[in-house]
Parts: sequence; structure tokens; C-alpha cells
Amino acid sequence: MQDLWLVGIGTGNPAHVTLEAVEALRNATLILVPRKGAGKEDLADLRHDILARIGVSAAVIEFDMPVRDENLPYVLRVNRWHDQIAAIWARTIAEARPEGGPVALLVWGDPGLYDSTLRIASRLDPRPRIRVVPGITALQALTAAHAIAFNTVNGAVTVTTGRRLRDHGWPIGAETVIVMLDGECSFQRLNPAGLHIWWGGFLGMRQQVLESGPLAEATPRILKARAEARERHGWIMDTYLLRRDTVKG
Amino acid sequence: MQDLWLVGIGTGNPAHVTLEAVEALRNATLILVPRKGAGKEDLADLRHDILARIGVSAAVIEFDMPVRDENLPYVLRVNRWHDQIAAIWARTIAEARPEGGPVALLVWGDPGLYDSTLRIASRLDPRPRIRVVPGITALQALTAAHAIAFNTVNGAVTVTTGRRLRDHGWPIGAETVIVMLDGECSFQRLNPAGLHIWWGGFLGMRQQVLESGPLAEATPRILKARAEARERHGWIMDTYLLRRDTVKG
Ligand SMILES: C[S@@+](CC[C@H](N)C(=O)[O-])C[C@H]1O[C@@H](n2cnc3c(N)ncnc32)[C@H](O)[C@@H]1O
Ligand SMILES: C[S@@+](CC[C@H](N)C(=O)[O-])C[C@H]1O[C@@H](n2cnc3c(N)ncnc32)[C@H](O)[C@@H]1O
Repeated sequence: MQDLWLVGIGTGNPAHVTLEAVEALRNATLILVPRKGAGKEDLADLRHDILARIGVSAAVIEFDMPVRDENLPYVLRVNRWHDQIAAIWARTIAEARPEGGPVALLVWGDPGLYDSTLRIASRLDPRPRIRVVPGITALQALTAAHAIAFNTVNGAVTVTTGRRLRDHGWPIGAETVIVMLDGECSFQRLNPAGLHIWWGGFLGMRQQVLESGPLAEATPRILKARAEARERHGWIMDTYLLRRDTVKG
Repeated sequence: MQDLWLVGIGTGNPAHVTLEAVEALRNATLILVPRKGAGKEDLADLRHDILARIGVSAAVIEFDMPVRDENLPYVLRVNRWHDQIAAIWARTIAEARPEGGPVALLVWGDPGLYDSTLRIASRLDPRPRIRVVPGITALQALTAAHAIAFNTVNGAVTVTTGRRLRDHGWPIGAETVIVMLDGECSFQRLNPAGLHIWWGGFLGMRQQVLESGPLAEATPRILKARAEARERHGWIMDTYLLRRDTVKG
């Protein structure tokens, strides 16, 4: 039985890496890196960049991500895909480290936040002991970049996805909402009255771009900045925080 | 005009510190450390421990936190207190660095999450440029310690306080709720049917203690573990995540 370390690496700034992550990666005997990930070269490069800076002695082995079968219904497709990834990990680990030893996987941001690595790891049989090293998330990268608070005094915060915001609208009773995984700028569907937005693309990265303001006024600026950044770099990752103006910050 | 760096240091594990925080602290010319903070010796020690490990060249100056005037109504009391802290910072900085240079403050966890440092810093006049270095939060320390996901697939998460949970009950429509700043184990007031809890005290620290299970069954175990840890160490900080069982993890 080997330990499997899921190591949060932060949101694209190599300096987001914690000393705990450095130690876990230095202690690993095998580090698995997806060859392409989400199809974004920059992201694979970042992982190698981090490992090079830290200086690891582990074998670093790349694996190809399986292709999702788009003919299957959504839930089945994702489950099947996770099974396939788990099978690839099991095979790669067995081939590379038949004698065991700690294995590490680098996970974008924090391994717990909108990421499937934990769910995939739980499919491994025999199940390794799973160790999680927390990482800087897009939530903290966003509020740090704007130098704003996550919450109002004694206030609650709803963390949600673009899809949920489109399907369910503004969460009932929420004063602060942070939206991730939104490819469609779903804030456009909200009634902008009384809402303020803080938006960020490529947070913590060299390409970082920020916009903020009252939602109605900021929306065209964000759409423009997002389209330009996406055009320039070929892809984009963005996150935003919405807050009711009536709430004291 | 000097830069004021608010540096997140994580939740008590010195290895939560990021490489970005290390760099910011090494570049500072002055680092301010509260002499007592929340009256917890361990916390002041941790700050000095972190600075010693990193090796900083800055002047490290301790300041006394003002005492809150308990005769004032809550909002006025907190505002007055923040004004006083800002005045102490301004005076200490002016005395120690009349020639300017970057000043750093170490902030528990992440500076944006249930912390007043940003609000105090915004009271400084002239207002310095405020730079925030994100840190590992109690949210990530909790999910990492239990090796669980923060959210369900495409699910929303409500981050809230013990006081709000007591005053408003379970947030309408929420499936996952994370509670901070709760000195009263307010989960006891909820109808436990269908709820699962993951609880952690001293997350990431040497004293870390974890409990989890269906809420009804886990509650007495948590109350006992919390009371024992508090008795042993003289204080406690705890955080917990509640999730509806009906939701697929
Ligand atoms: C699959 S989730 C992974 C989140 C990650 N585990 C974390 O802790 O931030 C990807 C989403 O995170 C957000 N995100 C991650 N990195 C980001 C960055 N550098 N800038 C802006 N948003 C980012 C975006 O909302 C993106 O759609
Ligand atoms: C004033 S808030 C500060 C939060 C901090 N800025 C962060 O990012 O986690 C203090 C609350 O954070 C949580 N907390 C902070 N550190 C913790 C730890 N090591 N273990 C458990 N809970 C912690 C507790 O809920 C505590 O009441």
C-alpha cells in the first residue's frame, strides 16, 4: 500500500506553492503529470516549471488523459472517464514503482475545490492512503488580486458555478456570491441593480487581467477584456465575486 | 508612500506558508507583529517561528493591541477599535521607517476571509498601496485534513459563521455549509436528519483533532473531543463542514 499525495499547487503563479507542497513533492518517489490536461500547453508547462524550481528526485512520468465518449449521457460519460483515468494511474504506478513509495499528483488550486482528482483517487483498488496538501484557490487569488474581503462582517458567502447561476439565478438570501467554472459570463443574466462585481482572468499569472465596478457599468468592460485576453492567449480561466451594494463591506 | 503587504500565513502549520509569502517577508523592511493577538501565546510564537525559519532582514516590531471598550454598542466598539489599531500602525511605521520601504503584516489564514486587517488598513491616511498575498484558509485546511471535496459535483457551498447559523438556521437551498467563528457548536441547533458533519480543531497544527459522521451520531463525539482539546491547550479554534446526505458527493 502506498501513500497517494494530492498536492495543491495554486492557480498558476509558481510562487503559490506552499512549503508543505515543496516537501511532499521532494519526498515523492513518483510524480504523475497529465500530458495535456485540459488541452492547455501553458498548464502542463507550469507543472514542469514548478518541479524544476523545487528540484525533485522522483521519477516524473507523463500520462495521456483518456478521451471522453461524447455519445454517452453526461453522468455515465463522466463516471466512465474517471474509471479510465484511475485505471491509467494504477497501471502507471504499478509499472514505475512496483516496490511502492509515495506517489504525488499536482492539482490545480486546491484539490478539494471543483476538482475531480479526489473522486478519481477513491476509485483506486486497492485504495491507497490519500493525503491532501491544501493549495491557494481561485477564491483567494481573486480577492487578493483586488485586495478585497471575501465576506462582509459576519456575512455569508455562496461559492457556486456558472451553470448553477444560469439555472437557479441569484441564490436566495445571498449577499456575496463567487462564481467559478463559467464559460458564458453568466452574470449577464442577472438583474444588475444594486450588484457590484470584481472579475479576474488568469489570476496570479503573468497574463492576469482584472476589472471591477457596478455590474451594469462593468459588464461591457469585462466582456471586452475577457474576449481580448482569450484571443491573445488562445484560452482563459476566470472567476468573479458579486456583492449586493446595500451590504456594508 | 509605502507598500503595505498583508501576508497570509495559513492556519497554524508553518509549512502552509507559500513561496510568495516567503518572498514578500524577505523583501519587507519592517514587519509588524501584534504582541498578543487574540490573547493566545501560541499564535504569537507561531509568527516568530515562521519569521525565524524564513530568515528575514526586516526590523520586526511588536505592538500592543488596544483594548476594546465593552461599554460601547457593538458596531461603534469595533469601529473605534479598528481606528485605534490603524493609529498604532501609523505611529509605529512612522517611528521605525521614516524613510519608507515595504511594510508587512502577517495575517492568519488568508487576509480576505473573516479577518479585519483589510478594513483596518483602509483607514490609514495617507493610504498606502495595499498588496495581499493569499494564504491557505481554514476551509482548505479542513477539507485537506479529512481528504474530502469542498463541493459536490456542480454543487454550491455556503461559507458562514456560527452566529448566522444560530440566527438564521440552515441556509435556504444549501447542500454544503462550512461554518467558521463558532464558539458554541451551533450545529447542535440543527435538525440532524440527513446531515453529515466533518469537524476539525487546530487544523494543520500539531494539536489537530478530527471527527466526522452522521450529525446525530457524531455530535457527542465532537463535543467531547472539543472540550478535551480545549481543556488541554487552554483555547481552541474549530471549523466544520455540513452536507446533506441526499446529495451525491
Ligand atoms: C476545475 S476548477 C478548479 C479550481 C481549483 N481547484 C481551485 O482551487 O481554484 C476551474 C475553475 O477555477 C477557476 N480558476 C482556476 N484558476 C484560475 C485562475 N488562475 N484565474 C481565474 N480563475 C481560475 C475558474 O473559475 C475555472 O473555471
Ligand atoms: C477570525 S477567523 C480567521 C480565518 C482565517 N483568515 C482563515 O483564512 O482561515 C477565525 C476562524 O477561522 C477558523 N480557523 C482558523 N484557523 C483554524 C485552525 N487552525 N483550525 C480550525 N479552525 C480554524 C475558525 O473557525 C476560527 O473561528
